[in-house]
Amino acid sequence: MRLMEEVVPFNKHLGMKVETLSEGYCQIRIPWADHLTGDPGRPAVHGGILATLVDVAGGTACWTVRENDNDRLSTIDLRIDYLRPGPAKDMICEAHLVRMGNKVCTARMEVYSEGDDRSAVGPIATGQGVYNVAKNKGQSG
Amino acid sequence: MRLMEEVVPFNKHLGMKVETLSEGYCQIRIPWADHLTGDPGRPAVHGGILATLVDVAGGTACWTVRENDNDRLSTIDLRIDYLRPGPAKDMICEAHLVRMGNKVCTARMEVYSEGDDRSAVGPIATGQGVYNVAKNKGQSG
Amino acid sequence: MRLMEEVVPFNKHLGMKVETLSEGYCQIRIPWADHLTGDPGRPAVHGGILATLVDVAGGTACWTVRENDNDRLSTIDLRIDYLRPGPAKDMICEAHLVRMGNKVCTARMEVYSEGDDRSAVGPIATGQGVYNVAKNKGQSG
Amino acid sequence: MRLMEEVVPFNKHLGMKVETLSEGYCQIRIPWADHLTGDPGRPAVHGGILATLVDVAGGTACWTVRENDNDRLSTIDLRIDYLRPGPAKDMICEAHLVRMGNKVCTARMEVYSEGDDRSAVGPIATGQGVYNVAKNKGQSG
Repeated sequence: MRLMEEVVPFNKHLGMKVETLSEGYCQIRIPWADHLTGDPGRPAVHGGILATLVDVAGGTACWTVRENDNDRLSTIDLRIDYLRPGPAKDMICEAHLVRMGNKVCTARMEVYSEGDDRSAVGPIATGQGVYNVAKNKGQSG
Repeated sequence: MRLMEEVVPFNKHLGMKVETLSEGYCQIRIPWADHLTGDPGRPAVHGGILATLVDVAGGTACWTVRENDNDRLSTIDLRIDYLRPGPAKDMICEAHLVRMGNKVCTARMEVYSEGDDRSAVGPIATGQGVYNVAKNKGQSG
Repeated sequence: MRLMEEVVPFNKHLGMKVETLSEGYCQIRIPWADHLTGDPGRPAVHGGILATLVDVAGGTACWTVRENDNDRLSTIDLRIDYLRPGPAKDMICEAHLVRMGNKVCTARMEVYSEGDDRSAVGPIATGQGVYNVAKNKGQSG
Repeated sequence: MRLMEEVVPFNKHLGMKVETLSEGYCQIRIPWADHLTGDPGRPAVHGGILATLVDVAGGTACWTVRENDNDRLSTIDLRIDYLRPGPAKDMICEAHLVRMGNKVCTARMEVYSEGDDRSAVGPIATGQGVYNVAKNKGQSG
């Protein structure tokens, strides 16, 4: 996970941490910081942070089923549904691989905040993403 | 535009600038910085930065047709298509209001980089977003 | 459910049946017919049939939480992921209400075919939709 | 175009006609019929018909840039935005290829009805789709 956390500059800038990783699954956290605020009135996290987290988590879930470590993941498209404001807390995204094709992978994501009682509240946001898995130095898309 | 650029902490953190604003339209820029890199190999901008830019630009285009300045915009859902890698340059997003309902607005976005010859290349990414326009202190969604 | 099955001409034309209905949930079936084929080679169901089923099921799940029977549902946007070919069998869609706002509702859908062993195969298609709930004779969107 | 109009049973059932076809572009029509109604009150076309039209038109635009006639198109994912009710008239969809990768193609669609004054009204619906181009008898996705 050094790759994801350290080698990708914007992930590192946000302090992303891969907390769990298994075949077709990952959980990733972005620690709270005040500059991640999107709505200072509530306050609530910026939608762009949620989108970033959803994008990276989906790609990481797809990466767990790569054929070799040189395969490169890129996002083809992404949908995000913003369901409730995210509080000023760590954001945690779970991503599940939904389908692994020989060209593209699909993943499903859910974002909660630290401390959410998931029996009582639904996710802050959900995402659905399609990712390209480029073999080796493969060309895009 | 002080609101968008200065009052929203994550927009300010990224140095977003509203370059053009008219009824149903805006153009917004994120200045390049190395920590915005998503793929250090190319290098290319992080998909989360593109998503953030698309989200904010769409909301701003919808905000131009608000009834009063206290109306609050929130994103309901967003789709982003990543069409080609974005180079290590300023990212510029144009957003057009597509539909203004009395409850929700729809906007269409395109991202280019600084210096792109738009007669020769298509956008780096496109987006489609649906936004809630909450009157006053109106409840969400 | 007479409304959904009998009053909406295209639903009736396809022979849609509401099989289960509870608060925030529905299951709807489209019986197989050869003219619903999209790929005669496999044969497989047409993607438009899956989209139609997903759209109607999501709207129906949202309709279960309406305030009164005159409320009118309309689709704002829809995403469909086609995950595997749907065989020449009845198509069955489950829809769950994900979020009920005071303006818009979000629903999540999964399509299986008759006889699918859901412990062994994932859905044929998934959908995510945002619907407008117009009170009474309310204007759209 | 015999393929699209005659060989695909559900396209034939709807009477779809390919009106224009060029590299990366197509225009397709579904003739009006009363059983295509989704909202008998207005009356308005069923959202599933619009989704079907959007799906087929996008696939056809991608098919125009195939390498050989045996390549098979399948939809990976689709987004549809419903912008205004479609009247009880022929529906016409234009699709433009947005990006042609070596694995997947992206297309953008707009639906109008027969007789729409496009200088005065926007589209009834827009769509964005990602399609798989399987070489020959290639496996899906």
